[in-house]
Amino acid sequence: MSRFILPDDQLPTAWFNLLPRLDSPLDPPLHPGTREPVGPDDLAPLFPMALIMREMSAEPWIDIPGEVLDILKLWRPTPLVRAERLEAELGTPARIYFKDESVSPAGSHKPNTAVPQAFYNKQEGIARLSTETGAGQWGSSLSFACAQFGLECMVYMVRASYEQKPYRKAMMELWGGHVVPSPVDDPDSPGSLGAAISDAVRDCVQRDDTHYALGSVLNHVLLHQTIIGLEAKEQLAMAGESGPDVVLGSCGGGSNLGGISFPFVPDEDVRLVAVEPSSCPTLTEGRFEYDFGDVAGMTPLMPMYTLGHDFMPPSIHAGGLRYHGDSPIISKLVRDGRMEAVAYPQGKVFEAAVQFARVEGKIAAPETAHAIRAAIDEALAAKETGEERVILFNYSGHGHLDLSAYDDFVHGRLIEA
Amino acid sequence: MSRFILPDDQLPTAWFNLLPRLDSPLDPPLHPGTREPVGPDDLAPLFPMALIMREMSAEPWIDIPGEVLDILKLWRPTPLVRAERLEAELGTPARIYFKDESVSPAGSHKPNTAVPQAFYNKQEGIARLSTETGAGQWGSSLSFACAQFGLECMVYMVRASYEQKPYRKAMMELWGGHVVPSPVDDPDSPGSLGAAISDAVRDCVQRDDTHYALGSVLNHVLLHQTIIGLEAKEQLAMAGESGPDVVLGSCGGGSNLGGISFPFVPDEDVRLVAVEPSSCPTLTEGRFEYDFGDVAGMTPLMPMYTLGHDFMPPSIHAGGLRYHGDSPIISKLVRDGRMEAVAYPQGKVFEAAVQFARVEGKIAAPETAHAIRAAIDEALAAKETGEERVILFNYSGHGHLDLSAYDDFVHGRLIEA
Repeated sequence: MSRFILPDDQLPTAWFNLLPRLDSPLDPPLHPGTREPVGPDDLAPLFPMALIMREMSAEPWIDIPGEVLDILKLWRPTPLVRAERLEAELGTPARIYFKDESVSPAGSHKPNTAVPQAFYNKQEGIARLSTETGAGQWGSSLSFACAQFGLECMVYMVRASYEQKPYRKAMMELWGGHVVPSPVDDPDSPGSLGAAISDAVRDCVQRDDTHYALGSVLNHVLLHQTIIGLEAKEQLAMAGESGPDVVLGSCGGGSNLGGISFPFVPDEDVRLVAVEPSSCPTLTEGRFEYDFGDVAGMTPLMPMYTLGHDFMPPSIHAGGLRYHGDSPIISKLVRDGRMEAVAYPQGKVFEAAVQFARVEGKIAAPETAHAIRAAIDEALAAKETGEERVILFNYSGHGHLDLSAYDDFVHGRLIEA
Repeated sequence: MSRFILPDDQLPTAWFNLLPRLDSPLDPPLHPGTREPVGPDDLAPLFPMALIMREMSAEPWIDIPGEVLDILKLWRPTPLVRAERLEAELGTPARIYFKDESVSPAGSHKPNTAVPQAFYNKQEGIARLSTETGAGQWGSSLSFACAQFGLECMVYMVRASYEQKPYRKAMMELWGGHVVPSPVDDPDSPGSLGAAISDAVRDCVQRDDTHYALGSVLNHVLLHQTIIGLEAKEQLAMAGESGPDVVLGSCGGGSNLGGISFPFVPDEDVRLVAVEPSSCPTLTEGRFEYDFGDVAGMTPLMPMYTLGHDFMPPSIHAGGLRYHGDSPIISKLVRDGRMEAVAYPQGKVFEAAVQFARVEGKIAAPETAHAIRAAIDEALAAKETGEERVILFNYSGHGHLDLSAYDDFVHGRLIEA
């Protein structure tokens, strides 16, 4: 027995809200013009009120609407898998579990929040959503979600990815999304996530029928992802474990990491680890301060670790981790010492992904491969000390549309970054 | 509840052999030189004896070795899913179930036979396997399987696919396979499956350490795939169904169709349907006669429906269905009236796949989309007559590496064939 499947009727029906459980309150976002705390009305041009109210909610649990559950059930609950063949290859006494979020329509955890975001916008009479996407995971997830509720979806895709990843664009269009390269006003620029956010926000504020949707960073986004950790907790119990010793996730904006780790924050003995790329080391080398979420400075200022909103990371394959900032909640957990952070260069990351693919048969997204690298290193550390450590990591997405990255690695063409 | 998951300890431990259950014996393959029935020794240069003996075995059940089960457990049992959202969209009283074989390492049913083939070859001391691949599903599956047993894997890939599908090549290389374009002696030819078989057989007979492996057509291959139908039978019972009214599968060489349908052959009320492309209509328009499996006439002659071993189908996206012949068992079932066959042009096939992707969230391989098309048409026929028909089809593979085909369809660039 190496896969643990939660029965369909045990799908969580409420999200886990970490905000009221934090040791001290989160500092508020500030208005980009006045630098005063933003109120709900300031955000109303961008988001539906149902999501805005979740940004600072004090409710410990938030019910998941039935219409959202009906769609999540297409792929949830997702499997928890014990990587026994990897354990044997490493010769470790550790038990390695991963939560398989790659089974969703778009192939990652992103639809977990795309679906409720589309739902709440539809409920408030919005007809169209605009968004940005880097590698394309988020844009394809939102396109899928919009198709479920009959919303139009406008995606500003970082130009470098738009040109390198035609398959992701095809996936978005298959689900009815419209995709244009960003920045829209500079066809010579390769673009960045921060610049694409500016394009999407600009689109939104110019049209009454349109709201903006963000795939990470914000509190309500991470809230929607907590379904991952809630399921994993139940599944570890099915596996006979009293709990994990360490929970790992790759970290760009923080949504897959927050999703798997937040339900474990109250369990004080559980170590939580963010894994990021050395080339975009927000948590390990950034400063904790108020900064914009986008390049143009149109979003509220958020209290977070940041490399500066004009930081331009190198073009590593893990496009989803190329973000200058980080979720304010994740940032606070790291600053408060509740969460650790480590960084790896991409060569070490792909080495781990290839080892995993050979023994476990699964080809991971480059983003996910960061968590695999750290999980393997945790297992090897347990081997050194002879500990029976229980390791849980988030297998946040598959790499079926990232095989050119593996091709570069296998043939020695990967840039070291 | 729309997904039915068989517990890991109910994974079938024996394959279902249809041969001794056929109404009359299957005609034997003939030697390409003498045109006399081939004996086990004639096949020994190509296959391990354990597989050769299965080609004509009279045992009703064949045990699956423990070493094979250990690897199959990485993704099996696979889910049975009820497509309730598709049913609602069609407004049909039919209940539509699909068996999800796309969850395997290579993304299709092919590893079900790649793993035992690699195992039996390893057991007989073989160090290297040669094979052909069209779209790349089989080559990547065998590369994965060879990696599990430390075998070298040499893949001759139809040149047109080699050039159009670099991602499949990258997948094979990630698992350690070697890939070269075929035909090896004519760099100007786009190639064909029949020609690639000739290349792979030629490689095999020139080296003592090498055997040949085939991903479809042969009896032992379809035997390994019956695990699909055996699981589906149990899962339909879990879903409260007394059985399917109709079982559908796309058909190129016949392996995914045989896999899901053979365990239902003894259930006389169950209709069995092969779905093929109009542009390669082996069962619907071919002749039943002895023919070679390859272009060069190096393989034994097999009794099957065929379009002629030099037939060159147009370059449709469903590369796995571009084969001139068909499994002898499938051919016999069709000839005897136990199985039906239908053919569809690819435009109608992609239309169904896009509808499926929008409501069920899953992007199918172009081959698999043939089964989806036929399942939708069965459901619409049930709507006409008001029948509560139970439809089961094989979701044989995902289309994550076929998104350029969807791009062509969405933008009206699909050739009509």
